[in-house]
Amino acid sequence: MSVIKGFVFDAFGTLLDISSIDQKLVWEFGNKGIELGTTWRSKQLEYSWLCQIMERYQPFSHITRAALQYALNKCAIEVDDRKVTDLANIYGQLPAFEDVAPTLQFLAQRYQLAVLSNGDSRMLQEALSFNKLHDQFDFVLSADEVEQFKPSPKIYELAVEKLEVTKEEIAFVSSNAWDATGAKNFGFRVFWINRKHLPFEQLGVEPDLVLGQLQDLTTNEDIAPF
Amino acid sequence: MSVIKGFVFDAFGTLLDISSIDQKLVWEFGNKGIELGTTWRSKQLEYSWLCQIMERYQPFSHITRAALQYALNKCAIEVDDRKVTDLANIYGQLPAFEDVAPTLQFLAQRYQLAVLSNGDSRMLQEALSFNKLHDQFDFVLSADEVEQFKPSPKIYELAVEKLEVTKEEIAFVSSNAWDATGAKNFGFRVFWINRKHLPFEQLGVEPDLVLGQLQDLTTNEDIAPF
Repeated sequence: MSVIKGFVFDAFGTLLDISSIDQKLVWEFGNKGIELGTTWRSKQLEYSWLCQIMERYQPFSHITRAALQYALNKCAIEVDDRKVTDLANIYGQLPAFEDVAPTLQFLAQRYQLAVLSNGDSRMLQEALSFNKLHDQFDFVLSADEVEQFKPSPKIYELAVEKLEVTKEEIAFVSSNAWDATGAKNFGFRVFWINRKHLPFEQLGVEPDLVLGQLQDLTTNEDIAPF
Repeated sequence: MSVIKGFVFDAFGTLLDISSIDQKLVWEFGNKGIELGTTWRSKQLEYSWLCQIMERYQPFSHITRAALQYALNKCAIEVDDRKVTDLANIYGQLPAFEDVAPTLQFLAQRYQLAVLSNGDSRMLQEALSFNKLHDQFDFVLSADEVEQFKPSPKIYELAVEKLEVTKEEIAFVSSNAWDATGAKNFGFRVFWINRKHLPFEQLGVEPDLVLGQLQDLTTNEDIAPF
């Protein structure tokens, strides 16, 4: 097996805790906040995939806002445009999981580190800066650069080009099972962070390793050489 | 506006009533049947889109079975392979909505009629034959023929080629808002059958007409010339 030369991380849900959104929505909208949050997230993913398939790229921040508008309509919640914008901007202020900073510090001693996200550049810079994580990465790679969304092989290819290593030398880390599936389909070595004890996708590929939390990357014996 | 020369219908959810599946699943698995049905359907769509984006086509019957297996895992329901196959085969025996047969008979007097579905040929033939609908259509067009899933423009193009008309001369009919969005993005005239009173997608296109049920196609004054 190839030696790992770089770690490439998904952002939303992997480094950044999107579950914090649900708490804010419940605080704002009571019980309706739960359905609103669930619908928003699933539509956000769905819209990124539909745009990719329709060959009609839109920045992820637009998609996030459109998905929120759909979710508000579905839940019969009426708010003005300014409020929609405020809510959508939560994505720039998501907290990182607690083990992110120490894990990145540890890995940065030995490997190139990158983020590879469907988020557009502005959205990513904002969220990483909010958590003072920006300096940890050699590359912050956005769907914007290629106008393609994950799980398209064309966006995973971006990491190979920027890090100047082979796909087998990249360890791709994601909490999103569909993203781990896409990354494995592309040819990365894939570590799936399964914090919620979910089943993996049934699409004919498996992650190389399943970890319960991000900091397991610093202690797992199967990740050689440390 | 161009004269309509052909009606092209989506199959699952538009002509065929997939809500009947939920009843069977509740009968089999009690309360867990509801979550199982919801997860199965959403994963089925998700897997078709992910396969499309990953450039890894699989027939829809495979995807349907894989999505069911995921949903069973998620709901912690253990059944043997034979049972999984039996459940997946429900898709070949879905009942058509009551107004389908009379609506098709009416439209067939004046227009070419076609089905255009993500379902593979065998699955479609089975479900249409089960409802004695097969003879109503001039063309039954499947994702199989192009190995592309909706909402890719490449599969909508198939209808243009087969019917030998322009895209503006085709009225595309779907109950699935994402499909209506893809069809409009491609350039068809689009009639969205919104039986469940859902909001439409927020992806920058709108259907030409929203109808509450399929038989409204036979009476709506905006659909000229009858």
